[in-house]
Amino acid sequence: MKKSLLLSSLLALSLIAPLAKAQDSLMIRKIYDEALVNGQAYDNLRYLCKQIGPRLSGSANAQKAVEWSKKLMESYGFDRVYLQPVMVPHWVRGAKEEGKILFYGTEISAAICALGGSVATPAEGLKAKVVEVNSLAELQTLGESAIKGNIVFFNRAFDQRFIETGQAYGTAGDQRNAGPAAAAKYGAVGVIVRSLSSKLDDYPHTGGTSYGNGPKIPAAAISTIAANKLHECFIYWPKGTPNSKPRFMPVEFYFKQNCEMLPDVQSYNVVGEIKGTEKPNDYITVGGHLDSWDLAEGAHDDGTGVMQSVEVLRVLKKVGYRPKHSIRAVFFMNEENGHRGGTEYARLAAANKENHIAAIETDEGGFTPRGFSFSDVNDSFLKTVNQRWKPLLEPYEADRLTRGGSGTDIEPLKSQVPGITLIGFRPDSQRYFDIHHTPNDVFENVNKRELESGAAAIAALVYLIDQQGINFK
Amino acid sequence: MKKSLLLSSLLALSLIAPLAKAQDSLMIRKIYDEALVNGQAYDNLRYLCKQIGPRLSGSANAQKAVEWSKKLMESYGFDRVYLQPVMVPHWVRGAKEEGKILFYGTEISAAICALGGSVATPAEGLKAKVVEVNSLAELQTLGESAIKGNIVFFNRAFDQRFIETGQAYGTAGDQRNAGPAAAAKYGAVGVIVRSLSSKLDDYPHTGGTSYGNGPKIPAAAISTIAANKLHECFIYWPKGTPNSKPRFMPVEFYFKQNCEMLPDVQSYNVVGEIKGTEKPNDYITVGGHLDSWDLAEGAHDDGTGVMQSVEVLRVLKKVGYRPKHSIRAVFFMNEENGHRGGTEYARLAAANKENHIAAIETDEGGFTPRGFSFSDVNDSFLKTVNQRWKPLLEPYEADRLTRGGSGTDIEPLKSQVPGITLIGFRPDSQRYFDIHHTPNDVFENVNKRELESGAAAIAALVYLIDQQGINFK
Repeated sequence: MKKSLLLSSLLALSLIAPLAKAQDSLMIRKIYDEALVNGQAYDNLRYLCKQIGPRLSGSANAQKAVEWSKKLMESYGFDRVYLQPVMVPHWVRGAKEEGKILFYGTEISAAICALGGSVATPAEGLKAKVVEVNSLAELQTLGESAIKGNIVFFNRAFDQRFIETGQAYGTAGDQRNAGPAAAAKYGAVGVIVRSLSSKLDDYPHTGGTSYGNGPKIPAAAISTIAANKLHECFIYWPKGTPNSKPRFMPVEFYFKQNCEMLPDVQSYNVVGEIKGTEKPNDYITVGGHLDSWDLAEGAHDDGTGVMQSVEVLRVLKKVGYRPKHSIRAVFFMNEENGHRGGTEYARLAAANKENHIAAIETDEGGFTPRGFSFSDVNDSFLKTVNQRWKPLLEPYEADRLTRGGSGTDIEPLKSQVPGITLIGFRPDSQRYFDIHHTPNDVFENVNKRELESGAAAIAALVYLIDQQGINFK
Repeated sequence: MKKSLLLSSLLALSLIAPLAKAQDSLMIRKIYDEALVNGQAYDNLRYLCKQIGPRLSGSANAQKAVEWSKKLMESYGFDRVYLQPVMVPHWVRGAKEEGKILFYGTEISAAICALGGSVATPAEGLKAKVVEVNSLAELQTLGESAIKGNIVFFNRAFDQRFIETGQAYGTAGDQRNAGPAAAAKYGAVGVIVRSLSSKLDDYPHTGGTSYGNGPKIPAAAISTIAANKLHECFIYWPKGTPNSKPRFMPVEFYFKQNCEMLPDVQSYNVVGEIKGTEKPNDYITVGGHLDSWDLAEGAHDDGTGVMQSVEVLRVLKKVGYRPKHSIRAVFFMNEENGHRGGTEYARLAAANKENHIAAIETDEGGFTPRGFSFSDVNDSFLKTVNQRWKPLLEPYEADRLTRGGSGTDIEPLKSQVPGITLIGFRPDSQRYFDIHHTPNDVFENVNKRELESGAAAIAALVYLIDQQGINFK
């Protein structure tokens, strides 16, 4: 009896499996056709970038973006569109920033910008001797005697050998995230951090820094070109310097910034939802973050991500797909400097006893899709998704299914919703850190087809999860 | 005896194979490190684009590019650097081009540019009624009675559903390549071709057209935006047109261009060579084309290709690799409007009895690498390269090894050198046809890391072919 059951199951499977695969293949083709031929993500992104623009948490633009996003989702006729209130920090950059290298009687102008969350310099600016270090470890080795009263210059460059630039960002990032707090502990009066960039150019890259509970000193990013100039002051004589002069003159730096932290502001995550036909309390979330840094339009970071997220729901609806699980597009607020939106979304998911089976974040730019990374999964899981889903995604060149990170906004779901699978959308990474957190992160640097095929790849994955579940652990 | 030999071979293989794989893996890592950390392709490309610029065959710039390229190769100390003389066509665009849609008493300016090889319009320009068609088949159906004396407007757009944009280019391309000749046969007085582009913008894309032995009529590309405007004249009334007016007014087009074909000019392929230590008369060729269209800097088409080709040799030399086979970097001349360089290279290979085992062309832009396509190979070949080489290229995300095309410049080798394997380098294709053959094909649109990792991927493949051969058929 058992044997015949098994046999008939196998028989059924051998008939059904190819049929199911063919259906999946057809549906994914439909999804891509809709996204590539009638895609709306690009036009939506143009509006967000050009009609709204920079939208740092707490700003008037961020509020405009929330209101417009809600209307956009409503226009698509999703089953439910709503805002999730969340209080967010409100940091402002203030007036024009200025940086100068002072060396051997000359002033060399240096492109800087305050790091997000930094305090201001005194109104007249801050000038001090520079101590260059390559790591937090080197800072510690030098200690208070070398650091006190000086400006610390963190100058470790991106390691270009990494194939994925996110890894270079990851290994250089502690200088910006934790460098200022660490330097302040040893009595530094200010911090200059080499921009976290793959590129040699004259744009400083902003980004958040955190003081923790320690003293707060002004901290700025410096462009990679200016960082190289500053570094060279420690090596070379300026041209024409007479040999009789002392070998080492102190290198000084001057900078001025007027940023400040204002009281928290009421803001919102924006949520759109298509109700599941079979398991309405089981959710698959797709999201990016609506806030951006203040220096640019936040096109790739993360306008592309939010516009792909809503496009996923639009496309699935348009091709007539009725999901079994509820599918949500979430525009998270405050990824850049607080993670408050993601934290609140996870808290509410737990409080409302929602069963989230998977969440996908798209926050690595709207570049050509490579695949997806799955967080904290075992070999058996990877084997299963590669057997089942890789062949379906391969014709679209979005089939690299690996173990890896997911995204800052969805990470809090891990501890709040047991059993959830967190997934990161992985576009090609080569260009991201050229423009990340700079004035160059603008709509013009987004390619329509790259953006659209990213949305299609995510929609395809959502479809597969909805059809087959993702409990492969 | 046989059995024990087999056993000992297997035993040896089981010890040697992992070791060889580890060595391959280490060498490929070295190649990437050199290309990504000390790469020179980007600076070389900047020189070619900014100091030389557009370099259509027969132009003074093309000659400058030949001379500079030879010096560049010589500076790298390759074993042999030389020029291969080849006569090339010399087409010039002439003075400012102009296009206008004439409809219902209004003039709508339309961005056009002459197709390469086209004849001029009369000096005062050419004006005629427009007949819009979507294909050569439709042209044939309409026939002489509908076409004679008119301007044919080929308006079939890129099919955005193709994942690889090269396929969209391939299926729309007959309109530009063969459309003017076909229309002339039916008595058309001129041809306007919708730009072969993925993008909706106002840049016309030039490119070669061929009249064959038929009559020659002026042919121009029209920007996709202007093509849409022209198309709309056949559908819509202009705003405010009284209903009493006749439903169909003739749509006319006016254009003026002063291009001409001058006598052939002496030009050259530029060749650099590292001599093989074991099989010096067995060659592996890596190449791109040095000529470009006249409208831009030919950055992606094909400055990146030639700079990657020479970088392959530089990197292999720099990491201390002594190849068994002779390795050549070839900068082909006249890919864009004649293929004379590639044809001559193949002729000389046969005449000199050179045994070419493989040739790789990089002429699809300097975008992030996806892999390689192998021309005219069987399943067993594909299986072998995927088993042996895919795992080694996978960490670099350049591991899509498929059946497919190679490149225009190396194709003539097929008939001249029996047994050669032709290979195309396949970068990501999404952005290529936004800028292809337009003024936007400039250095600024090339990403350093994408360019460099392409050079590294090709160098890795050359290394693997040199080590293992490629006779897998």
